[in-house]
This record gives sequence, C-alpha cells and structure tokens, in this order.
Amino acid sequence: MAGNSFGTKYKVTTFGESHGEGIGGVIDGCPSGIALDFNQIQVELDRRKPGQSAIVTQRKEPDEVKFLSGIFEGKTTGTSIGFFIPNTNQKSHDYSDIKNTFRPSHADYVYDKKYGFRDYRGGGRSSARETAARVVAGAIAKQVMPTISIQAYVSSVGNIKVEKPYTELDLTLTESNAVRCPDLAKAAEMEMYIKQVKKAGDSVGGIITCVIKNVPVGLGEPVFDKLHAELGKAMLSINAVKGFEYGSGFAGTEMLGSQHNDLFNADGTTKTNFSGGIQGGISNGMDIYFNVAFKPVATLIQNQEVLTNEGEIITLHGKGRHDPCVVPRAVPIVEAMAAIALLNFM
Amino acid sequence: MAGNSFGTKYKVTTFGESHGEGIGGVIDGCPSGIALDFNQIQVELDRRKPGQSAIVTQRKEPDEVKFLSGIFEGKTTGTSIGFFIPNTNQKSHDYSDIKNTFRPSHADYVYDKKYGFRDYRGGGRSSARETAARVVAGAIAKQVMPTISIQAYVSSVGNIKVEKPYTELDLTLTESNAVRCPDLAKAAEMEMYIKQVKKAGDSVGGIITCVIKNVPVGLGEPVFDKLHAELGKAMLSINAVKGFEYGSGFAGTEMLGSQHNDLFNADGTTKTNFSGGIQGGISNGMDIYFNVAFKPVATLIQNQEVLTNEGEIITLHGKGRHDPCVVPRAVPIVEAMAAIALLNFM
Amino acid sequence: MAGNSFGTKYKVTTFGESHGEGIGGVIDGCPSGIALDFNQIQVELDRRKPGQSAIVTQRKEPDEVKFLSGIFEGKTTGTSIGFFIPNTNQKSHDYSDIKNTFRPSHADYVYDKKYGFRDYRGGGRSSARETAARVVAGAIAKQVMPTISIQAYVSSVGNIKVEKPYTELDLTLTESNAVRCPDLAKAAEMEMYIKQVKKAGDSVGGIITCVIKNVPVGLGEPVFDKLHAELGKAMLSINAVKGFEYGSGFAGTEMLGSQHNDLFNADGTTKTNFSGGIQGGISNGMDIYFNVAFKPVATLIQNQEVLTNEGEIITLHGKGRHDPCVVPRAVPIVEAMAAIALLNFM
Amino acid sequence: MAGNSFGTKYKVTTFGESHGEGIGGVIDGCPSGIALDFNQIQVELDRRKPGQSAIVTQRKEPDEVKFLSGIFEGKTTGTSIGFFIPNTNQKSHDYSDIKNTFRPSHADYVYDKKYGFRDYRGGGRSSARETAARVVAGAIAKQVMPTISIQAYVSSVGNIKVEKPYTELDLTLTESNAVRCPDLAKAAEMEMYIKQVKKAGDSVGGIITCVIKNVPVGLGEPVFDKLHAELGKAMLSINAVKGFEYGSGFAGTEMLGSQHNDLFNADGTTKTNFSGGIQGGISNGMDIYFNVAFKPVATLIQNQEVLTNEGEIITLHGKGRHDPCVVPRAVPIVEAMAAIALLNFM
Repeated sequence: MAGNSFGTKYKVTTFGESHGEGIGGVIDGCPSGIALDFNQIQVELDRRKPGQSAIVTQRKEPDEVKFLSGIFEGKTTGTSIGFFIPNTNQKSHDYSDIKNTFRPSHADYVYDKKYGFRDYRGGGRSSARETAARVVAGAIAKQVMPTISIQAYVSSVGNIKVEKPYTELDLTLTESNAVRCPDLAKAAEMEMYIKQVKKAGDSVGGIITCVIKNVPVGLGEPVFDKLHAELGKAMLSINAVKGFEYGSGFAGTEMLGSQHNDLFNADGTTKTNFSGGIQGGISNGMDIYFNVAFKPVATLIQNQEVLTNEGEIITLHGKGRHDPCVVPRAVPIVEAMAAIALLNFM
Repeated sequence: MAGNSFGTKYKVTTFGESHGEGIGGVIDGCPSGIALDFNQIQVELDRRKPGQSAIVTQRKEPDEVKFLSGIFEGKTTGTSIGFFIPNTNQKSHDYSDIKNTFRPSHADYVYDKKYGFRDYRGGGRSSARETAARVVAGAIAKQVMPTISIQAYVSSVGNIKVEKPYTELDLTLTESNAVRCPDLAKAAEMEMYIKQVKKAGDSVGGIITCVIKNVPVGLGEPVFDKLHAELGKAMLSINAVKGFEYGSGFAGTEMLGSQHNDLFNADGTTKTNFSGGIQGGISNGMDIYFNVAFKPVATLIQNQEVLTNEGEIITLHGKGRHDPCVVPRAVPIVEAMAAIALLNFM
Repeated sequence: MAGNSFGTKYKVTTFGESHGEGIGGVIDGCPSGIALDFNQIQVELDRRKPGQSAIVTQRKEPDEVKFLSGIFEGKTTGTSIGFFIPNTNQKSHDYSDIKNTFRPSHADYVYDKKYGFRDYRGGGRSSARETAARVVAGAIAKQVMPTISIQAYVSSVGNIKVEKPYTELDLTLTESNAVRCPDLAKAAEMEMYIKQVKKAGDSVGGIITCVIKNVPVGLGEPVFDKLHAELGKAMLSINAVKGFEYGSGFAGTEMLGSQHNDLFNADGTTKTNFSGGIQGGISNGMDIYFNVAFKPVATLIQNQEVLTNEGEIITLHGKGRHDPCVVPRAVPIVEAMAAIALLNFM
Repeated sequence: MAGNSFGTKYKVTTFGESHGEGIGGVIDGCPSGIALDFNQIQVELDRRKPGQSAIVTQRKEPDEVKFLSGIFEGKTTGTSIGFFIPNTNQKSHDYSDIKNTFRPSHADYVYDKKYGFRDYRGGGRSSARETAARVVAGAIAKQVMPTISIQAYVSSVGNIKVEKPYTELDLTLTESNAVRCPDLAKAAEMEMYIKQVKKAGDSVGGIITCVIKNVPVGLGEPVFDKLHAELGKAMLSINAVKGFEYGSGFAGTEMLGSQHNDLFNADGTTKTNFSGGIQGGISNGMDIYFNVAFKPVATLIQNQEVLTNEGEIITLHGKGRHDPCVVPRAVPIVEAMAAIALLNFM
C-alpha cells in the first residue's frame, strides 16, 4: 500500500515534492489515438496555480508541464505517459525554523514518526503542490471522455453559503470571478471575507460542489467499488478535505423514504434526483452531484505554538506566503479527480 | 474492476445473494496463529441480523457462519479463510410483481441495464444481506488488533440528533437499547419515532458516529491512500450510505485556521482534535472519529409508482417486511468496515 | 501479497485445504448472461480428479462442485460466483507420523517457519487439491471464450519424449489414453513406465505442451504484463512446476536471428512461428504454444529420511496412496490456468 | 491491465520510448532512510548501456539517471522516487523505410493492430531501452537488501554452454570479460562466436543463470504468488525472453522422486538443492538459482522480407547498428528484476 497511485484501468502515479526538482507523474492505461489539446491542459494548470488572483497564495510558479513519453505526433500512443512540472520557485530559503519543529495540524509530526525523518522544506510530499500532477492527469481524462461534462464550483466559504441548488445556477459564470462561485452576489461576499481573513494572516475553509452530466447508465461496480465510493475516495485523497456527500447527502438522513425515493418517468429518468445519479453504486444516467468539504489550511501568518523535536512548545510567527482560502484553487483539482475516477469505470 | 474485494494486505472478497444459497466470503492475508473467539463473531452477526428487535425488519435469519478453511485447531493458519452463511429464509415467494418492474431508488433498473438481466428476488446481490459477510471479516479483523477499540453508535435518526460529542457520552450504553444510541433520552425518542415511521410503512435515515481509540501513530499512506480516504471508501461502499466526514467534517469548513489548528502538548498529543486523529492522511495517535450518513431505505409498505420493463408507470403496494430504519443494524457493519480498512494499514 | 487470487479483470480467489471441509473459490468479473454448461465443468473436474485411472493416485474423491452465487436461472449474473467442492475422503487418519516431521521437498518445513505452525494433515493448503478450484474457474473461462481452443497434452514422461511438434499430432487423441498423450505409441511407453515407477513407490516428472488457437491479435500489455509473462506466472503457480517456455523456448537460444525471425505472409500471418504467437508481449494471431515442466512429486511410498521438529533426522516409510506421475492429471489444470490468464486480457 | 507497473509493496512504474525525450520511472514503496550509493546505481546502468564493448550494439548513450523526488540529503524519504534518463542519441534519422513496414519478429505489427498507430522510431515503447529504468529500480532494491547477494552470468551463447554448475564457478570472474561468463575458456569461445555473428549482420541467443544467496526462509506466498512464479513473471517480462526454469528445471522432469527429493540436514538445510531454494512457493533458505532463455534479437543488418502496411512483402536491408547478442547486456537486467521481485516479498 505505497499509496502514490490511483486507479486500475486509467492508473495515475505521482511523485515530487514542493521544494525538490519538481512534480510529475505517469499515466498508465490512457487509450491510444487521442489528439491532445495541450493548451487546455495548461488552462487547467493555470486554474490551480498559485498567484492567479489576490485571494490565493502569492507564490509565483508557472506550472508548465513537459510530456516525456506516450505521445507521438500530438496523439496518445496507448503506452505510459510520463510528465514533469519543474519547480521554479525554490528559493534558498532559511528553513532552520521549521526543520526541528512540528507545526500544528500539518503532516510534519506524523511524517517524522512514520519515516524517521522528512524533507522539511515546505511540506515535502505532503504539500498541495502534488495536486498539480493530478490536474494534468485529470485534464487528459476529460479529453478522453469529451461528451461528459464535469463542472465544479465553490458553494460555500466559511458560513457564506450558496443557497440555490446547482440546477438553478448558471455554471458558465464560475470562472468569471476569483472565488469560482457562479452566484455572483455570494461570490462578492466571499471574496471580501477571504481578503479580510488574509489580512489577519488567518485561513478559512469551504465547500466545493461538483456536477457531472451525460454519464452513461451502468458505470460502477455493485459491492465495494461502487461509483460513489471511488468518487469519495478520490475526493478524500485531496489535501485538506474533511468530508464527502453525494445526492441528498447528510441532509437526506432527515428525510422519509416516501420523500426520498426518486420516482421514475416512463423513459427511465427520474422525477427527482436525491440519489445523485447513482443507485446501488451504479450510474443511472441522471446528473451526478456531490459536495466536498475543505478545512481551513493550517499555514498561518500569525504567532502559533509549535512542538520542537526535543519536546518543547515554543511560539513561532508564520512567515512567507499563505493561502487564506484554498477552495477556489481546489476547484480544478476536484474536477480532475472526478474525471480520473470516472474514466476508471469506462 | 470487478468490485467484490476490499483491501490489499487483508483482502476480503464476498459473494452471495439474498435469495440464493447464502452469503459468503474469503479473507486473504489474515495473520497466522490468531486464536479465534467464535462466539464473539456470532455476537457481531447477531447485532446485524434481522428480527433482533421491534424496530428493525422482522425477517428471521439465524445468520450462522460456517468456516470452510484457513483455521486449524481453532487458530488461523495464515492461509485464506473461506466462510459461508446459508440463507434459511428463502420462501417460495411470489416474485411476479417485481420481476418485471423497477422499484424507485433501488438497484433494479441499473442492474438490468448493466448486466442485461438480474436476479430479481429480493434485490439479489444489491441486497444489504451482503453485509453479513463484511461483519464476519470485520469481527476477525478486530480480533487481530485486540488493543484497538472500534465503537460505533447511532447519533441521529431523522432530525432527532445527539447533541453531545462522543467524548461526553458513555459508549458502554450503546448496546443497552434497540436503537444503539448511548444518549438514553435521545434513544427513547428515536425508538418512538421509528415505530411511528414503521407503522406508516415508511422509512427514515440517520447518522452513525464511529470512534477508534488506541491507533498507533503512522498508519496511512501520504497521497492517494490516505487513512481517511480508505475509511471513507469503506463506509461509502455500505448500502444506503450517502456521506462521510471525519474530524471537524463539514462543520470545519466554517472555522478559521486559528481555531481549527490542533495545538500540541509536549508529548505529541494535541489539545484539541479537529483533525480527527489523522494529519496528512496518517494517524497521529489521537482518537479517530467520523460520521456516516444513511438515507432512508427505499423499500416501503405503501403504494408507490414503479416502472415496468415495458416502459409503463404503474402503482404497486409494497409487501412483506421492511426496515423502517436501517441505522441501528448498520452499527456493526460500520465497525466491521472500519476494522477491515484499518488492518490493511497495519 | 496474500497470494490467493489470480487476475484482475477475471479474478479468481481460492481457499481450502486437502483435509478440511473442502476446496472452493470466488470468481469476480465473469461477464453476465453466459449460459453455463455444468456438465462440461464436471467433465473438466473429472479429468483432474484422483482415482480416474490405474496410473494416478487411487484416492477417491468425487469432486462435485456446488455453486453458491452469481448464477440465476442457469446464467451468470455478472456478480461474484462463489463455489465449493466438499472433501468427502477425510478419513480419521493417524497423522502422528507427519505431525512433527518435515518431509523432504514438501512445503512442511517452510510453512512451519513462515506461519509458526501448520495444518499438517495431507499438506494442508499446499496440497495439489487446491487446483480443483482452478479447474472450475478455468472451465467457466473457457465457456466465456467459446471460439478460442485451448488444448494441452503430455509431451514427455521421464525421458520418454514425443518428438513431433504439435502441428503433426492429432490432438483429438489426447483423451484416448490415461496418460493424455496424443502420440499413441509414446503414450503406451509412458504408461508402462509410470506403472513401473508406481510399483517401486517412486514418482517421475514430465512435460505438458499447451496449444491455444484462434486468439485475436492484440492481447497482452507491452511492458510488465506481457501475455507470455502472465501465462508463465499462471503456469509457475501450479504445484510441482519447475519451468516454462513458449515458442522456440530454450532451444531458440541456439538459433541465429536469420533463422528465428518469422517472415510475414501478405495477410499478416507468418511463415514460421518461433515467436509462439506472441511478439513484444502481444498476441499476433498465430497459435500460442508453450511447455510446462513438472518435477516428480515428493510423496513416495519408500523409506525416506525426514527432519523432526526437534532437529533429528529419522527414517520413515511413506504410507497411503501416492501419485507416481502427476502430469496426466495436470493437463486440465494447465488448460484452466491458460484460460484464466487469457480471459484477463480480453 | 495497463501493464507498465511491476510489484505491489515495491512498485516500479516505467515510461519512455527509445527515440522520445528519454526513459524514466517511479518507485513507490521504497523504505525510508536508505542512504543511496549513486555511484553503484551508475555502475549498474553502465553494465547495461550500449557501446560498452566490441560485442554489443555500438550505439552510444551515456544513460545518466537524474532523480526527481523521494530523496533528501542523500537518503530515501519513503515517498515516491521519480527518475529520468534523457535520450541523448536521437539522431534526426530517416525513418521512411520502417514507418510503413512491419519488420519480422518485432512488435511493429501487433502495436499497429492494437493501438491503431505507433511511434515507429526505433521500436518506441517496445525497445529494450525501457529496461534502463528497471536497472535503476533494481539497483536501489539491491541497496535496500544489502545482505542478499544476486549474481547473474551468461551460461550459454548459441550452442556454446558452460557445463559446470554455478557451485563450481568463481562468480567474481563474471565481470572480467565482455561476455559476462565466469568460465573464462567458454567466455573466449563465446566472444569469438559473437564477433563472427556480428560480422554476418546476424544475431544469436543465449541463456543467463542467476544465483541468489542469503535469502531468509519464508519469502513467497503459497498459492498464486509463489516466489518462483513472481520471479518467472519478472524474467518473462524482459524483452527477448522465451523461457524460465528454476532449480532442476526442465531437466528435473526426467528424474525420479527418490533422486530429486532434497534430504534434510539436521539444521534444516538440505543435502542437495534440486528445489532451487524454494519449496511450495516459499524460500527455504538455500540458494535460489534459475535460468532465463533469450532468443536472438530480431534486428539484423541483412536483407530481410518485411510486410508493408499495404499488404505487400518487400525486401529491405537492415541498417544502423544492431546487437549481435543481447545476452551480456541483459545480465544486469536479470539481476535488477530479481531484486525487484524479491523485495516485494520482504
């Protein structure tokens, strides 16, 4: 269970640390003959990259991907696709502060206990920078299934929540604002709040809703590899995620069966969709939709108690740049993991 | 991705339908030399079985497990453990009603589309009866890790919710009532409500909270196979589950980082535990706790519209017995899947 | 790496010991809608079973398989197929001899060291009886791919060798004699030799050749999961196998490239077939053929030195029945594993 | 079954084509804290690289590996190790000849049929250049298990065969000659023969023997994942391999059980070792030894018939450089795959 691969049919293996040479991966199982749109892959990386707006971390990384194999004359060959995104922003930083300390709610402590030592620079392998590789693999997965639409958006930041269901929103507005929220009034509110949080050197969490349309009937396996179980695992593997619900989700626990059952239309579609497009673990052709909960990221620009490796509690002031709200940048990551999970069933 | 196995190191493969010969499984990877407590395995099965109280389905099944291999002189041999639970309650029922109809929010429709036909008797492989095999595998997993405590309980039914966190509850009271809720006042309320729902031939959902204590530091893999991602997949693979959250969960999205970060004590434990015992996907030695959301089961004893395989909508009255609230019986299943997922990392 | 499963798409998991309740397995990934010919499955089991002729072990086992799930109205449902073959010949034997001794070239010693103790009755899990489960899974695999022909035969026993290549033999004669050798003159010689070996309480090895016809072009994956690598692993996983070669095999090492290269015909077939139907790990549509080497089985009815668990060397006389030449009975096992391996690529 | 990964615990995934950017891989599951000897890794690569002697292909490639992740301050961190070996010898060659033709006994034809098109430059993914990545992963695996010795050597070329068993050879002489044969008289004979074959633009096959010493008792899983089955698969996945045998191998089929059984010494070692260090699929602590058969490589510098993609047979003269005997360069690859397979059981 080494844990750096996801998927069986379309298997993605990633490597890389935030402050090493770079981030990369291998995609094994991509069908042959797909003419890749490289611009679109870069567009997805740009949606994830730091420094893209005033409300995300200001670290500058171009995040340009170089493909190393598996592509010939612009098309996938069916063999493994290696790729690499060099780190360009590795400052010769002074890490003496964090080298011997464990920051609260970071992976420092557990890495040290599990592996005996760690690459302490910027979080090493536990850095969210690893997700850049997922975005590449997801962008290709989307291109393999061009008829399926996967759209995620920010549905809450702190306690500012979009009240409308996705069916009443215009999802083409998602990219129109820095928060990636298609409810523009809420987006403005969220943006203001994030700026305020940023100013305080603090961070805040939020929720991403993802909607998948045009899924064929029959994807998913009935018992352990239910479609939503794989989607859930995919989402829970993203840094900072604390929860996953699909269809009626946690709110559905309060409903009666007579309210919750999705009655059929004569064509096999359903009148309601509390099931979230999945019944018995298998897609039924209706929209799949789910929510992903992100905690506030643990890096703060404030005084905070840390534990030293000699068992002392000391106070340090966080320095450098931080992400006051990781949720807008996580939107393309959620879409990427949804695409990867889905393609494994096709 | 055939989907009837869970795990790699401690791999559980299940088979069986609700109205066939029975339910069974194979456990591959169980350590050798474990002296099994067979009574305790039966106790866990009895916690799951139908007919155990007035608030669950009244179908009678003894659910006695027969071990077929992998055990010699009462101890595991390290080879694969085959087991079987015969179905004893297969009445020669009249299935003509459901043979040609798709019940709402059941797996009937998607099975038919995916496989071309289906075992229509009582849900076939999609029946929750499959979970009996999980309970066997989980009961053995618990015995392999006797120092780890895994305790689940019902924390809500409909909108009746236990308000106290698990740390303020006496979990030894869980089995004292039919609902498996350690808050006895709430338990009484829930029981009354479920009886009322049952009388109406309806069903209701709920939430199970699970607490795992004494987990060693270092379980879990950093990227895709994070400990909580595997726990999440394990839970989402249980019938009727719609959501999973751990630690602060969805509520954590409303917090600031400065509130959410778990400050260290000098011994490496933390003052708070919003992280839910897992940081960066790896256990930190604190309690692991999570919530699992169950929808109301779809089988009702009411009039309901169904779709025929000829594309007609007709009204049928549900018959037989039904589970007005599956949540109390799901408590041992949640514990079993938690044990199986955890053992895969040990 | 618990090791009791083979395959990914068509995954076979087996369990059971020679002297426990029985032998069984689970097939996960069998396509739905296959109308099974149960007689044919029994025919394959009968080809493997003990007591079928004068030259194999005289232990009597009917080897009747009972299917427990995954089949409805005679057809596979696409869900997992559980099956069980009860042991009927478990005499209350006196095992005091072998309980505390390790027989030479058996698995006794390594099992004891690896697992701390063992089911000492008749070899436990290491018994070739386990292969009965493979035969069931292989018989079903054959029925899933009815257009592909898989035929194995005995091509040598001791130093009695069929000299002709398979292309010059009439493979319909294979089942006409107890040795399963289509060269009838050689078959008679082999049979006489095996009887002589049996009389001496000794055993002898041999080689099985397997021929697969009508394989579509394109099966196999180019790097690690080459078609012949999976076939090789499948064969090497059978008890008593010491070697595998395909196409020109070990003899091909003596050839020049200009002799060995298979020149094309205009239709893509080749004039020769030293490649054995596989190029670069991928089937090319020509016949696949390979050889599997079996050692003489270690159980003898002679005086033999054994090691006690107290570190003494003592002499015991083997008792009971033994298989003077396991090769004829291994023919259906080779075919079964070939079918299972192949189906995983289709 | 995408096929570009080997192993579960120590999982190696490779990518790259002979004439693309380069060759690389990801190692997932390497233990943390291993201080790597980078020189030794380069030594292994140099043993495999082209141009190292007069009897191998004269293509020049430095084969320098760059590590991209998973190593910090010279030690493995326990996270995934990405690495890359750039291609430096990609001449802007004229491929018009081979673009539209299928060479005999190459993978051209099957790749084209399987994937619809192919990277026709120098064999693409089917090139033996891929094995450079295996050598890197194997060199690291060796360093993870420093007490285990893995030594391979050339035991035959064409029909020139080392007659002595490995126990009578001085394996420290293996690297003393270009053929990598520790029997110096035979080595000289082989070298002369290979030069003669080379001059004729032809190629010849051979056999590599591999010996593993100091293996702990108990490695391997009893049923499908027998130690020798994994070793066999590992070897059969190497380009040009046609066969695998361990211990007594094919010759053992001619022996009687009374000759073949390895009698015990009082300390659990055995007097003979026909078993090849493995009993019932599990290592018994004796030396593991096996043979790997390599066919003559298909690329010739001679006139040869090829098939065009328009279904014509034409004659082409092979051009460029070729490997008259791949076996000496395959010695480090056999060792690498043996190390990788073994580490997966530790």
